Amino acid sequence: MAGGGGDLKMLGMWASPAALRVRLALSLRGVSYEYEEEDLKNKSDLLLKSNPVHNKVPVLIHGGKPVCESLAILEYIDEAFAGVGSSLLPADPYERAVARFWAAFVDETLVKGMYQASWGTTEEKEDGKKKVTAALETLEGALRECSKGKPFFGGDSAGYLDVALGCLLAWVHAVDAIQGVKILDPSTMPLLAAWADSFGALDEVEAVMPDLNRLIEFVMEQ
Amino acid sequence: MAGGGGDLKMLGMWASPAALRVRLALSLRGVSYEYEEEDLKNKSDLLLKSNPVHNKVPVLIHGGKPVCESLAILEYIDEAFAGVGSSLLPADPYERAVARFWAAFVDETLVKGMYQASWGTTEEKEDGKKKVTAALETLEGALRECSKGKPFFGGDSAGYLDVALGCLLAWVHAVDAIQGVKILDPSTMPLLAAWADSFGALDEVEAVMPDLNRLIEFVMEQ
Repeated sequence: MAGGGGDLKMLGMWASPAALRVRLALSLRGVSYEYEEEDLKNKSDLLLKSNPVHNKVPVLIHGGKPVCESLAILEYIDEAFAGVGSSLLPADPYERAVARFWAAFVDETLVKGMYQASWGTTEEKEDGKKKVTAALETLEGALRECSKGKPFFGGDSAGYLDVALGCLLAWVHAVDAIQGVKILDPSTMPLLAAWADSFGALDEVEAVMPDLNRLIEFVMEQ
Repeated sequence: MAGGGGDLKMLGMWASPAALRVRLALSLRGVSYEYEEEDLKNKSDLLLKSNPVHNKVPVLIHGGKPVCESLAILEYIDEAFAGVGSSLLPADPYERAVARFWAAFVDETLVKGMYQASWGTTEEKEDGKKKVTAALETLEGALRECSKGKPFFGGDSAGYLDVALGCLLAWVHAVDAIQGVKILDPSTMPLLAAWADSFGALDEVEAVMPDLNRLIEFVMEQ
């Protein structure tokens, strides 16, 4: 991999979608880094010192300076390693704004729905599942608009929004396996289902995706 | 004002902090635009068409294309009007990441705490107030770090984070007046209190801040 190197460290946790978001970005951008796995039940001093406000992964530490919040880290990767590989965000200001809008939508609706569907009361879980379906239907429309017939939100190659959404795919596949469902149903969300296949098949994505069986076990233990 | 002009329109609502965020940004950047006030009880077709996902203000429409989500709009203003005035975000990638981190913090903690303190049950309101105080104490520390002794988060001049946080000041002052309190207490938050005074005194800020008495009336009607 080009760029990055010894002064770039990432604090993550293998099953965390937010941490995976950063790993996907670094992988797609071809930036090399040192990865440190955190035990979230016994967080390292480095994590607590690097993200004193939230005490959470992911943290990207570049030249000793910590960057926190997964979407802010994606922007940072684009800006700090501008000379390495292709940008995650498109070049056009309007297209950048559209990608940021949808990334915020993913976090505000889909991620929150997924949490609710996983850890709420029975009623909250049902409501969470409905929110997930509604959010995915909206994203199916977004993909139609953003991709303009190309495989990724970013067009011919995976970019910012692909990463922002794609980091959730591991959990989607795990829940599919556990519940015997198909959350990204090709009959109702053909574009998203095809996108998930294309994104998952990228070498840079495969290289950092968690092992599905291990994740299934992890999800079932929660 | 330089730049912008006839092809730039903003849909807002005078009492909305998110809409004020965009007006502050445009004012500080010196970008001219046409402002359209929305009646949120009877939203315009233009608003519903421009933000079909959330049906919410603010929307910035540039050359007929709508940009939504206040923080994404701030980034857009910086990028689309790069030649006009100074950027809201600093130039350095790390400082940009820090500003984005804190803006996300403002929305995730302070804004949510303010909503809860305003519209929850009595218990939720008390909890909301505590969250607001805790968030402000954290931001006092952030201001110490970011400003390095200068008046604004952005240093010598107000920037992205000043705008992201400053859009809440009108409501803070209104609640102060209604409840006979001083949310930004100079004895416990001296930097934030001084920052609020400096920010509020800027011509570009005064020009777009809502009338306090009108806002007090509006808040009391909620």
